[in-house]
Amino acid sequence: MKLNCVCIGLGNVGRSWAIRFATHNHIVKVFDSSNLAIEESLKAIAHTLIDLEKSHAIPSASEAMENIQPTADLSEAVGDADYIQESIVENSDRKREVFSRLDVHSPEQAIIASSTSEILGSLLFEHLPGRKRCLVAHPLNPPHVIPLVELCPSPWTEPEILDRTSAFLTTLGQTPILVKKEINGFIANRLQLAVLGEAIHLVGEGYCSVHDIDIALTQGLAPRWALVGPFETGHLNASKGYRSYIDVYGETHRRIIDSLNTQYEWPTGLIDEIHEELTKATSEEEVPSRQRWRDNQLEKLLTYLNSREKFSE
Amino acid sequence: MKLNCVCIGLGNVGRSWAIRFATHNHIVKVFDSSNLAIEESLKAIAHTLIDLEKSHAIPSASEAMENIQPTADLSEAVGDADYIQESIVENSDRKREVFSRLDVHSPEQAIIASSTSEILGSLLFEHLPGRKRCLVAHPLNPPHVIPLVELCPSPWTEPEILDRTSAFLTTLGQTPILVKKEINGFIANRLQLAVLGEAIHLVGEGYCSVHDIDIALTQGLAPRWALVGPFETGHLNASKGYRSYIDVYGETHRRIIDSLNTQYEWPTGLIDEIHEELTKATSEEEVPSRQRWRDNQLEKLLTYLNSREKFSE
Repeated sequence: MKLNCVCIGLGNVGRSWAIRFATHNHIVKVFDSSNLAIEESLKAIAHTLIDLEKSHAIPSASEAMENIQPTADLSEAVGDADYIQESIVENSDRKREVFSRLDVHSPEQAIIASSTSEILGSLLFEHLPGRKRCLVAHPLNPPHVIPLVELCPSPWTEPEILDRTSAFLTTLGQTPILVKKEINGFIANRLQLAVLGEAIHLVGEGYCSVHDIDIALTQGLAPRWALVGPFETGHLNASKGYRSYIDVYGETHRRIIDSLNTQYEWPTGLIDEIHEELTKATSEEEVPSRQRWRDNQLEKLLTYLNSREKFSE
Repeated sequence: MKLNCVCIGLGNVGRSWAIRFATHNHIVKVFDSSNLAIEESLKAIAHTLIDLEKSHAIPSASEAMENIQPTADLSEAVGDADYIQESIVENSDRKREVFSRLDVHSPEQAIIASSTSEILGSLLFEHLPGRKRCLVAHPLNPPHVIPLVELCPSPWTEPEILDRTSAFLTTLGQTPILVKKEINGFIANRLQLAVLGEAIHLVGEGYCSVHDIDIALTQGLAPRWALVGPFETGHLNASKGYRSYIDVYGETHRRIIDSLNTQYEWPTGLIDEIHEELTKATSEEEVPSRQRWRDNQLEKLLTYLNSREKFSE
């Protein structure tokens, strides 16, 4: 069924959501308060759709583009909405104000989701008469490529809204996970920042280079984690599963865990040093073309991962 | 040039090293003190080589197998060695004793490397007359598939030994990184345990399920990290590189980092609960076949990653 989706805010995240909705044959109203932002984002969306058509990820860029309807009028954007995805700037006051308007102007049964990566729904939705139909749906960037979406209900979100959101995103090829209770950074960013915190510690205290941290992931940990997550990695590292894995390695793990310094204070100058080392490989001028390369590679890698053979006994 | 490599200890890690050496056309003496272990490991190595030939990762299993020479005599194993890789059980007393024998019986110019994941070289090599030619070369399992090797010199390791080891492993398709100063868990396991520590906290305190942690990696963080590591991810997440990324996100990161609980104490029963959840997807009986599936998938994924197009401006 063709639904009416709405993207509020057309930065990188909003644009990418629009692509996910449009390529799954839903109508997408794309709203931004600035006409310039709308114009720029339509160009960027068209560009990405053409790339996706070229790499055979979608059948037709022009068909997808036909699903996209720009507007600078918020009440018109959400007037017949089924699903609204907010992706404006990360500022709680501005988001609260936008949610007030979304709640007033959209049909009662519409789902209102926020892409926020750092503000809790209990702060964003508290003041809304329709807060029971609001939740956080935090994607990893770019959401038209990466399947993961973190669903975090606020204390008022109705279970039925959570279920409908999860079911809808699944039909788009997303993989929702559930953040059962609100927590700063949700799940993925906490795991990511655990790595970053310890990585900055290791570089800051001279144990290894910036480049070697990146290699430790790209050539070591990440390909394994792309197939089986950290818990299943343990389950498969002992012949009798996770319990026996912890029996054998638990004490060693505890010793290493107790010596971690993820909360290391970054000394003055360290961020500049890391920046300098990174620019040796990719200069500031090369960043945009390297970004495009990464997005393109990521799309191909996920196509590869999704098409590989599944496990069977 | 065909070198004389030696694998000391033929558990999973030692066998996998033997495959890496043999498939790169070096002679590999494989030593274990138990004849039964030798017999079993030769069977397992032959089995894996045939799988690799089937998936076209190597041209000929039998040619590789011809490079492998089993022996239960340590002095014979290392008598004309160029490169020795020790992978016996993780016990410092037993490793120290084996290193004493390796140091006595091998030619003076041979490199002696330990696969240890948790014992520092300064403890393993301190007592050896030839300690300057010893170092830790810690692989990620299985080393015939995963490129990453962590090289950690002890305080006595000569720079020339480190350089030769790094150059040699690179010719085998490995990607060595340098642990500049000794630290508990080296680099990769510290990063891995930062994730595991926070993951166990999130599950233990009821924020999410075990399965959703694994999904957060497999469907989200890990594919991105398989292409660009955590530092480069930041460098590419802002149009002017890492410094501007931290300008924008640094404060948010600091707030999340300060709220991490990687050193969370595991409550009684939590490990059992995690085990139970994991066995719903893969029962204890299914673990071995799922392991084989993972290794096979990992080999294919790394072949895919190595063959993809490189970045160019």
